[in-house]
Amino acid sequence: MSGNSIGEMFKVTTFGSSHGPAVGAVVDGCPAGLELSKKDIQDELDKRRPGTSEITTSRRETDQVEILSGIFKGKTDGTPITCLVFNEDMDSSVYESIKNKPRPGHGDLCWTAKFGHYDYRGGGRGSGRTTIGQVIAGAVAKKLLKTLGISVVSHVTQIGHIKANKVNINLIESKIMQNPVRCADQSAAKKMEKLILELKEDGDSIGGIVETVVLNPPPGMGEPVFDKLDADLAKILMAIGSVKGIEIGAGFDAANLTAYEMNDEFYIAKDGIRTTTNQSGGILGGISNGMPIIVRMVVKPTPSISKLQKTVDLSKMEDSEIQIKGRHDPCICPRVTIVAESSVAIVLADHLIRGGFIHPSKILKN
Amino acid sequence: MSGNSIGEMFKVTTFGSSHGPAVGAVVDGCPAGLELSKKDIQDELDKRRPGTSEITTSRRETDQVEILSGIFKGKTDGTPITCLVFNEDMDSSVYESIKNKPRPGHGDLCWTAKFGHYDYRGGGRGSGRTTIGQVIAGAVAKKLLKTLGISVVSHVTQIGHIKANKVNINLIESKIMQNPVRCADQSAAKKMEKLILELKEDGDSIGGIVETVVLNPPPGMGEPVFDKLDADLAKILMAIGSVKGIEIGAGFDAANLTAYEMNDEFYIAKDGIRTTTNQSGGILGGISNGMPIIVRMVVKPTPSISKLQKTVDLSKMEDSEIQIKGRHDPCICPRVTIVAESSVAIVLADHLIRGGFIHPSKILKN
Amino acid sequence: MSGNSIGEMFKVTTFGSSHGPAVGAVVDGCPAGLELSKKDIQDELDKRRPGTSEITTSRRETDQVEILSGIFKGKTDGTPITCLVFNEDMDSSVYESIKNKPRPGHGDLCWTAKFGHYDYRGGGRGSGRTTIGQVIAGAVAKKLLKTLGISVVSHVTQIGHIKANKVNINLIESKIMQNPVRCADQSAAKKMEKLILELKEDGDSIGGIVETVVLNPPPGMGEPVFDKLDADLAKILMAIGSVKGIEIGAGFDAANLTAYEMNDEFYIAKDGIRTTTNQSGGILGGISNGMPIIVRMVVKPTPSISKLQKTVDLSKMEDSEIQIKGRHDPCICPRVTIVAESSVAIVLADHLIRGGFIHPSKILKN
Amino acid sequence: MSGNSIGEMFKVTTFGSSHGPAVGAVVDGCPAGLELSKKDIQDELDKRRPGTSEITTSRRETDQVEILSGIFKGKTDGTPITCLVFNEDMDSSVYESIKNKPRPGHGDLCWTAKFGHYDYRGGGRGSGRTTIGQVIAGAVAKKLLKTLGISVVSHVTQIGHIKANKVNINLIESKIMQNPVRCADQSAAKKMEKLILELKEDGDSIGGIVETVVLNPPPGMGEPVFDKLDADLAKILMAIGSVKGIEIGAGFDAANLTAYEMNDEFYIAKDGIRTTTNQSGGILGGISNGMPIIVRMVVKPTPSISKLQKTVDLSKMEDSEIQIKGRHDPCICPRVTIVAESSVAIVLADHLIRGGFIHPSKILKN
Repeated sequence: MSGNSIGEMFKVTTFGSSHGPAVGAVVDGCPAGLELSKKDIQDELDKRRPGTSEITTSRRETDQVEILSGIFKGKTDGTPITCLVFNEDMDSSVYESIKNKPRPGHGDLCWTAKFGHYDYRGGGRGSGRTTIGQVIAGAVAKKLLKTLGISVVSHVTQIGHIKANKVNINLIESKIMQNPVRCADQSAAKKMEKLILELKEDGDSIGGIVETVVLNPPPGMGEPVFDKLDADLAKILMAIGSVKGIEIGAGFDAANLTAYEMNDEFYIAKDGIRTTTNQSGGILGGISNGMPIIVRMVVKPTPSISKLQKTVDLSKMEDSEIQIKGRHDPCICPRVTIVAESSVAIVLADHLIRGGFIHPSKILKN
Repeated sequence: MSGNSIGEMFKVTTFGSSHGPAVGAVVDGCPAGLELSKKDIQDELDKRRPGTSEITTSRRETDQVEILSGIFKGKTDGTPITCLVFNEDMDSSVYESIKNKPRPGHGDLCWTAKFGHYDYRGGGRGSGRTTIGQVIAGAVAKKLLKTLGISVVSHVTQIGHIKANKVNINLIESKIMQNPVRCADQSAAKKMEKLILELKEDGDSIGGIVETVVLNPPPGMGEPVFDKLDADLAKILMAIGSVKGIEIGAGFDAANLTAYEMNDEFYIAKDGIRTTTNQSGGILGGISNGMPIIVRMVVKPTPSISKLQKTVDLSKMEDSEIQIKGRHDPCICPRVTIVAESSVAIVLADHLIRGGFIHPSKILKN
Repeated sequence: MSGNSIGEMFKVTTFGSSHGPAVGAVVDGCPAGLELSKKDIQDELDKRRPGTSEITTSRRETDQVEILSGIFKGKTDGTPITCLVFNEDMDSSVYESIKNKPRPGHGDLCWTAKFGHYDYRGGGRGSGRTTIGQVIAGAVAKKLLKTLGISVVSHVTQIGHIKANKVNINLIESKIMQNPVRCADQSAAKKMEKLILELKEDGDSIGGIVETVVLNPPPGMGEPVFDKLDADLAKILMAIGSVKGIEIGAGFDAANLTAYEMNDEFYIAKDGIRTTTNQSGGILGGISNGMPIIVRMVVKPTPSISKLQKTVDLSKMEDSEIQIKGRHDPCICPRVTIVAESSVAIVLADHLIRGGFIHPSKILKN
Repeated sequence: MSGNSIGEMFKVTTFGSSHGPAVGAVVDGCPAGLELSKKDIQDELDKRRPGTSEITTSRRETDQVEILSGIFKGKTDGTPITCLVFNEDMDSSVYESIKNKPRPGHGDLCWTAKFGHYDYRGGGRGSGRTTIGQVIAGAVAKKLLKTLGISVVSHVTQIGHIKANKVNINLIESKIMQNPVRCADQSAAKKMEKLILELKEDGDSIGGIVETVVLNPPPGMGEPVFDKLDADLAKILMAIGSVKGIEIGAGFDAANLTAYEMNDEFYIAKDGIRTTTNQSGGILGGISNGMPIIVRMVVKPTPSISKLQKTVDLSKMEDSEIQIKGRHDPCICPRVTIVAESSVAIVLADHLIRGGFIHPSKILKN
């Protein structure tokens, strides 16, 4: 398979499955001399942790991170940083009854086609739990970005038919933790929460849109013609389970725009050349232009639902039905925000090193 | 930079710029024994060639391909296949007057931030002309796919506000060549053509949506958790110039769906397990499920327009204006269809080899 | 840095340092369905473990492996296999007194030049202890090779001036465990052991040569022109600490041979075409030819010795002296044999998958 | 196959075969702003060109390079540099008579095992002619190295039993062009030339040793634990056809040394910390230490000889004989020197960028 690594210079490899001993990540290529503590990583994992509100799964995991390598006297030492989280609250029994019935909307049958079997216990490596790997690596990446004053934040902009109003991008970070939905528009957040709970009650789930914003990115990141910054962002975000679409800046609205409407005009600003608008979402020709980077992804409704669905029974090769009893999120968007942030941070860390913005071996003093 | 290669086993490297001596591609990793002629590649290039109708640029290039390596007695020999197209009709003079004025919507200023200069002659390597590389490699990939009965076709589904009606996916290929827009709905195609010509007259351009369909894909392609099939498709498509968004299956509509609506239910069909609907677009958990793969991308309006736009003059570092006089497509969507097809074919060829569907070194007899 | 991974399809990433919490490896790309137990890996680690005889370091580590991921019901599941060994017997105090004095023959000063510091505790990531990573991955690789009947064995052929007599390559495996030197020639082994103990007594150490033999390799492994089989073997073996040279088949003797002496002539054998001699060491044009693969590496004497040596004091930037008191191997060759075996097995596993000899996703039934 | 690329940041892809239309290389990742002319590359190719003396093949090629991309106004522009040489003097007829008889010492049969066929015309892609790719890329690398004052030179130190005396490493470059053997010891050179001509007369050929020296390398290049500088050098040199062994510094002599003899002691020099000796060959722990890098490779005798040899006839699957009539080098060492230099330069360019010694996107003014 060997598809579990991403990045060229800041290289992340993740491992582990939902019901195995542990999940984790190896980060190879972080320069030496970066202050990094267990708390830096734990704080990020806590944002992803399940069981924190009524609108997330009731699976309880403390998700305590352990650092196995790469840190020497409180700083990165330039060698691979390996972190893991042991799985604790593994209730596999619930999966026994459905182990021959591929769950609609899940990859069970695809994994079987590929590997000759699938781990029916919570999806195995296909589980959203494996995104702990991205969050670990993202925590390291964020610390690296911070040395250049770059920050990344994700927020929910739509759940079902409820769309949030636009919020000043500099205020998003302070507003999203005020509600369990991680929506910066508090009024919309309340409606979203209500909708999610209604669907939970109904044994169903709902999709939504997560937007990620990068503040203070330097111009010049991206490696055309294939490793463009937007191309690498699209890849890592599409690789998150349940994501079915990605757009940058104006995104799909661009289909209905003329160039005169779409193009961002240039002007001389105090700190350099800027654009009057940001339809491009901070990326032109696959390279950052110094404006905030704006990328959105659509997250499909969590496919595990307790409503009765048609499927097949693989042991008998006949049509069958399934009702999924596990503990699932009625809307995964709020928890996915941190995975999106982490993923974007990983790509930026890689491109900052590839582009010569950060020294590849050591943090240089300013 | 080193961002000009893509693929792990079927590895494509492209080179060349708009006004340099040549553009081309090296395909490394194509198994030996595949019949491949100059015509196979030329036919694909002809679909991309400019100057074939009123709605494309008037730049005239014959775009004749030359094969430099990798073919022995009419078949691939397992070594790198190198092809190139020499640039002919290069009118650089028109760019002299605007060489200090970055064009809105283009990457000129980003390239300068990155490389310390930019090639003002038609965007240099940032030009759409470099997609000849993808088309060359795509031609090889398509021949490889054909050995397994897999085909790829792209069509225009929207231009501005005009949306095409759905067409049976098996009929798309036969219908798109009946009009210059490459839209399978002939009635919509007429309206699209009219709209494009109006905008051309107005010195403006318009965006649109291109959908790519893969017929007869085997289940099991894709390498989670990062090199998922949809992630690799998103990357290669987002890397095409002017693309601002990608979606698979239901795509962004999934935000407003419940799982019960979104999930595709399974049933036993004659030729295996199939799904009743195809909301997933043929990919679940990052792996193909055997249903047709459906991926859409939004293409922004060609940024080069003759309308007056604000920009800056880099030689004086002051605000300025620009009117672009070159020869440009008022809508790039029709010509981009072949680039999308090629890009998808490249990803599939790579995943077919990586997944063991095609022998990596030689075409095995059936 | 990001130089801690090797392999394209069978991809190995190692991590950890001599005095950090743990050392280990992630193996990504092992097909699903391979039987693999903790014992398979532990048995290999035990061959590398220190403290087993008078001629190895007295550092005592039980080196118990833990499997964190990638195994489901006793078989690989196609996802990354992560294993680690926690460090136990870490005596860092001995290094405090020499922490500003780079040790001659070690990379201390080079790591400082690169990373701005070095981990003076046993060399940190530069320690031979990190080869536990190769042994873990090699154990997985060997199981994979076994499915095709391929085996790999390493033996010591020279220590100082003492050279072993040639032994039938099919008998090496049974003979090397009869002495602590892992030399197949018992008479030479005794002399080697004596020489090592003399040098230990003298506070010095000695170099040697390790040969690795691959039995029953299929013809056709290797990917010219860069990823040739011998090139990849040379890389992975040269990457083992203390190795200063690699040769294949006749190796450096080829300088003094004519083509008529060097060339292996072909003949028709019962099981295919074979060569009368094996001067090429089983590899021609970078591709295996089906004959046993023979590769030798020279291992320099362990640089940590208690003899007084000249060095510099980095805290005062003045000339100084050093006497190294740690627990070191007077000859590392015997323990390196298992690392060489593992390294060769890793390269073969990768090339067997790359070359289509082993299915990349699952073990196919015969 | 996809084994025709090397390097992570300075990425080289080569293509073409002995009797196809052309051979060449794509260099991706060279920073923008490096002065590079056709002459820079042609001068290097001329050192490799056949037909320049009695001791090389009589095949005559002018080997004129053409630059297809990557240069803008006399400087690199940061995009892929593609160069090629068209094949001219292709006499394939001589190979017709032996096309079913694999040549001893060549990879013919191995290529057949791998690809199902082989290009019998001069070895196809297995021909030494493909090293034109390395020389092209090496020419670019050398210009890059020059910006830091680093130079690379190769010389012949042994042919058959004749060994050259040591020469001051700073004088090698000026001395090797004084004789056709490229040996810095003029007296030995004469004997070597005589030996080569004798063997040519006899229809045979002879092996030798080529040493490559890097002057003025900075300390800190190399990426442990796998992408060590010596490991990457070993790989690229072993990938040159006919090379059967690699050694660094003391190399295979280290087997017979004690640590006290092998270790290089440190002292404070005017320009930093240096070692009194250079047994390590400039690399410790896989990282350069600032001393000259010394690497040697053994080159086997050219396998194509006119002496009668035993082989098999593949069309009849019976034992047979072969006499090779083509135009071949009686000793390839002199011409391989430039390939070795180029290969080493490629690895250094890659590691200089990876290690942050050279900016990845543009040449920074000092």
